[in-house]
Amino acid sequence: MAAIETITEQRCHGGVQGFYRHESESCGGPMRFALYQPPQAAREVCPVLYFLAGLTCTEETATIKAGAQRLAAELGLILVMPDTSPRQTGFDGATGDWEFGEGAGFYVDATEAPWSSRFRMHSYVASELPALLGRHFPVDVERSGITGHSMGGHGALTLALRHPGQYRSVSAFAPIVAPTHVPWGQKALPRYLGEDKATWAEYDACELVRRRTFDGTILIDQGESDTFLATQLKPELFDQACAEGGQSLLLRRHAGYDHSYYFINSFIDDHLRHHAQALGRL
Amino acid sequence: MAAIETITEQRCHGGVQGFYRHESESCGGPMRFALYQPPQAAREVCPVLYFLAGLTCTEETATIKAGAQRLAAELGLILVMPDTSPRQTGFDGATGDWEFGEGAGFYVDATEAPWSSRFRMHSYVASELPALLGRHFPVDVERSGITGHSMGGHGALTLALRHPGQYRSVSAFAPIVAPTHVPWGQKALPRYLGEDKATWAEYDACELVRRRTFDGTILIDQGESDTFLATQLKPELFDQACAEGGQSLLLRRHAGYDHSYYFINSFIDDHLRHHAQALGRL
Repeated sequence: MAAIETITEQRCHGGVQGFYRHESESCGGPMRFALYQPPQAAREVCPVLYFLAGLTCTEETATIKAGAQRLAAELGLILVMPDTSPRQTGFDGATGDWEFGEGAGFYVDATEAPWSSRFRMHSYVASELPALLGRHFPVDVERSGITGHSMGGHGALTLALRHPGQYRSVSAFAPIVAPTHVPWGQKALPRYLGEDKATWAEYDACELVRRRTFDGTILIDQGESDTFLATQLKPELFDQACAEGGQSLLLRRHAGYDHSYYFINSFIDDHLRHHAQALGRL
Repeated sequence: MAAIETITEQRCHGGVQGFYRHESESCGGPMRFALYQPPQAAREVCPVLYFLAGLTCTEETATIKAGAQRLAAELGLILVMPDTSPRQTGFDGATGDWEFGEGAGFYVDATEAPWSSRFRMHSYVASELPALLGRHFPVDVERSGITGHSMGGHGALTLALRHPGQYRSVSAFAPIVAPTHVPWGQKALPRYLGEDKATWAEYDACELVRRRTFDGTILIDQGESDTFLATQLKPELFDQACAEGGQSLLLRRHAGYDHSYYFINSFIDDHLRHHAQALGRL
């Protein structure tokens, strides 16, 4: 049984905000994640909501900035914030570019060397992490929801669409919805996955939702003053894909909001309630 | 009229989270502060709550970590988070020690060279900043409250006790209450203020509250697992001083909580409501 090392645990809103490290099989080395246990976790297993962060972020980013613990404590939701990639891989080109490599794992299972030996965030989040959590924390893995921001929104949508039944709810903040059609994806996907665009499509929420819908409404919030809106995010493409695929989507556009955690912090409570509803907490 | 430079402004909870820079007369150089305008500020002047941060912090710390904007938006409170000292002073010994100098202004008006020319945070927060805010933002300076954390809790208490009528409400998180009796104060105060302990007493909340009370209940939250509790904070000294001086005090001790912003984030809403009550917002 894989061991988990506790880095820190701190009291927060009546529960415990922890940071943990463990040896990951999927990612071939140490991985870190943050996990918040609400007060209810002291006496019962609780449903879990994953929050996947975006480019440049770590397990600390949403933990510190999203402001999710307050309502999670009220609703009885465990929060899990994984790091966005393996670290200190030593691979040529793994650092120094915020759009690729460490901090930019794009939640794929890389097939191209050298990335394929470490950059397997899809398997890590979908399989290894839930199994680990189920053994070490009072997590009811049968009741899982997933959300994320930007690259992490892409992660949340593709994971939910590719693993039917695993997540009861999915939402996203300013997600990358069509990586095969925008610069961020077109830069990262060939290096992780090779040139075959059929492989890329497995990590493209627009492509996936046309093939099979998610059982439930997908909630997406998007700021209208987001610098990346027109070039990298293009929520209208997902809107259209959902319409074509018959997917229920609640896409909310917010005037004046940008791509930052001030935006996320402003709407996180709505997302927590969206997930709590599906997870039997409301 | 002094100019204010806008560094950034971002939409947050229906209002605007801004960061600003200006030339400070009190501090003899540029100063930065963060200011949150709730939605109500678009149509009316609003009461203001100052949050003074602690050692090592900047104007960003509470802005990012305290989670105060959500309820401030609901209550219609403007939030002001000043930096904790002047920066880039170039003084020998001003950097490199987290307990003294830049990031550790202790909210005093220094009398000793070279500090006396720049480290005048008491006058800055008490006089210069309110006047500036009144001219540039929809702030009702007649309705002001003040709070802070650790060194900033010391700042909040001493400012409120020394300026009767200026603040309608005061609270603190894990404040330094007796700097003349604890290592942090005994290290910093002589360098800023010289060896005369009568001068130090002007910046010691325990000394001040024995002489004159604050008109209203002082709210203090303190974590029982705070590393600095027994050596630097000693809330029991303030409890006793308030009893002697006839000051109404609500000192709450919270089992398991430490000195971090996870602690502050857990109780910030109670403080916002405490101030909103006194500021006519509840």
